[in-house]
Amino acid sequence: MSHPLPFISRQQAQAPFFVGVDLGGTNIKVGVVDDLGRPLSWLSIKTDAPRGAEDATARMGQAVQQAIRQAGLQPQDAVYAGLGSPGTMDIPAGMLLEPVNMPTWKNYPIRDRLSFHCGLPVAFANDAGAAAYGEFWVGSGRELASLVLLTLGTGVGGGIIVGGFSIDGEHSHGAECGHLIIDYHDDARMCGCGQRGHLEAYASATAVIQRASEALAADRTSSLHQRIAAGEALSPLLLAQEAERGDALSRDIVLETARYLGVGIVSFMHTIDPAGVIIGGAMTFGGHESPLGCEFLARIRQEVRSRAFPVPAAKTKIDFASLGGDAGYIGAAGIARVAYRRGQGLPL
Amino acid sequence: MSHPLPFISRQQAQAPFFVGVDLGGTNIKVGVVDDLGRPLSWLSIKTDAPRGAEDATARMGQAVQQAIRQAGLQPQDAVYAGLGSPGTMDIPAGMLLEPVNMPTWKNYPIRDRLSFHCGLPVAFANDAGAAAYGEFWVGSGRELASLVLLTLGTGVGGGIIVGGFSIDGEHSHGAECGHLIIDYHDDARMCGCGQRGHLEAYASATAVIQRASEALAADRTSSLHQRIAAGEALSPLLLAQEAERGDALSRDIVLETARYLGVGIVSFMHTIDPAGVIIGGAMTFGGHESPLGCEFLARIRQEVRSRAFPVPAAKTKIDFASLGGDAGYIGAAGIARVAYRRGQGLPL
Repeated sequence: MSHPLPFISRQQAQAPFFVGVDLGGTNIKVGVVDDLGRPLSWLSIKTDAPRGAEDATARMGQAVQQAIRQAGLQPQDAVYAGLGSPGTMDIPAGMLLEPVNMPTWKNYPIRDRLSFHCGLPVAFANDAGAAAYGEFWVGSGRELASLVLLTLGTGVGGGIIVGGFSIDGEHSHGAECGHLIIDYHDDARMCGCGQRGHLEAYASATAVIQRASEALAADRTSSLHQRIAAGEALSPLLLAQEAERGDALSRDIVLETARYLGVGIVSFMHTIDPAGVIIGGAMTFGGHESPLGCEFLARIRQEVRSRAFPVPAAKTKIDFASLGGDAGYIGAAGIARVAYRRGQGLPL
Repeated sequence: MSHPLPFISRQQAQAPFFVGVDLGGTNIKVGVVDDLGRPLSWLSIKTDAPRGAEDATARMGQAVQQAIRQAGLQPQDAVYAGLGSPGTMDIPAGMLLEPVNMPTWKNYPIRDRLSFHCGLPVAFANDAGAAAYGEFWVGSGRELASLVLLTLGTGVGGGIIVGGFSIDGEHSHGAECGHLIIDYHDDARMCGCGQRGHLEAYASATAVIQRASEALAADRTSSLHQRIAAGEALSPLLLAQEAERGDALSRDIVLETARYLGVGIVSFMHTIDPAGVIIGGAMTFGGHESPLGCEFLARIRQEVRSRAFPVPAAKTKIDFASLGGDAGYIGAAGIARVAYRRGQGLPL
């Protein structure tokens, strides 16, 4: 897996150092960054969730120490670790409650157990909240005073940074941005969470596949029919490929996604009114590097401008994330840095 | 006009003192509160908007001094004033931009002009943001760490308090809670702002009247027909009266409003995740004092619980506001207190 940011050397780096851990259902990414958010090292281990939370957390702790060594640092050079995790959680308590993809990890005090295993104090965050902090600190949002991050993948995740901090919410359910309601009707699309009308039910990869399946079942002409007949599975990537080859149905499905996102973004602009909204995650249709990605972004902006109040419509930055898969561990390290500086009485 | 909070005497009050100004399209309410948010005096003057912004602001300044005298205070006892204003604004600059109901007041530096006329430093806020701060400080939200206030009137206003502060937004468009999108479809209801599908287009007094008109035009049986034939105008109050007398159509329209509000509230719970959501404004159908108001609130809670994630559904307080028409000036005074304490280096 590539990473968009080049490593800097120990000599160029500025102390103190922070370790970020990005826990996913399949992989755990662990990286070391310096005081300016620049990565020095990075590694990935398997989550292997069925072996249990304690087993994975012990391996995470070892990976933290390994990443510190790979960065050319002594153990004491790293002062704080940060952990971004999926699933329902109690952030102040440092607890995982019911991680959807890791059913045996219920009610696990992951923050303190990771601290035990890695030997560092640990700051704890929602995975998308950590990614949002990463983009805010050193990514697409680095010049923004506040931002909303939407991550498009199997679901739609989110993070909200206002006043330099993540909005975690009073019950650790802040920034569940995919579960904003964009259609109140009883026949609205069903979300993976079991409720209807959520942004995620329209704009996630799952939703894109569902909408494409429906269009194909309605027998619309599309080169997708041939690829599926050849045994390929519908996916955002397949749609992107066919859209770029001129398939109208594929392109429609992709751009319809932009429309739904625009609707959700306007709700954020009229309530949070952030300096910018950043679109990240696995499903950005190639991002700035691809004509389809550019059109996707342009359509999001168009929908936003046609629906938002004039001032935020003109001033709110709408752009792709820039840290890719590194946002999670860099942001977790950034949250660790905030906790460290608060503990030291340093300005935040 | 009654006020729900009794005045306290100068002897009982705790210094320092703050003056709150609640600017409305028709009236301007000015009140003095002590350091604990308890009112000592209160008066109202006409806005008389056509006479212009400077004229009204000069009279506001006089009213501030009059309210201080009525409170039994010396001018120097009041240390800071706060102003809550409607309309589009630039909060950091202290400017009114385009107040909808006061068209000649464009691009007016109201904060600094009020400061000139009243002789006090002035903190500036959105009217609904000030009301939200009032409910947070001494109202329904006084035991909540964070809240969203929805004010139901001609439109739907809002305020969001997180971390002890109002979310004003990067472009002073934060907490335009009535302009959350709850229906993305092209045929969604039209909002007063000219866009479709906003919460305000379903749950404001204007929307209630519109929905009732449509139901009556569809010839549904209702005692409203007689009242309208007798020359009365459709209003939330008329609906409430007929609903309480057993009119099914009136009751349906009122409770349908609760459903839309529930949808909007869930979006706030899944993004802001506040400790509580407070419903205020002129249209609460009698609030806790009336059977219809209680049923209205119960239906909001029911809709919320059926749609929200289990943890916030169980834990988020949903209740009516408790300060009534005093929330605006008390909250403006509270925002003045925050500005004062920040300036003095006191804990916030």
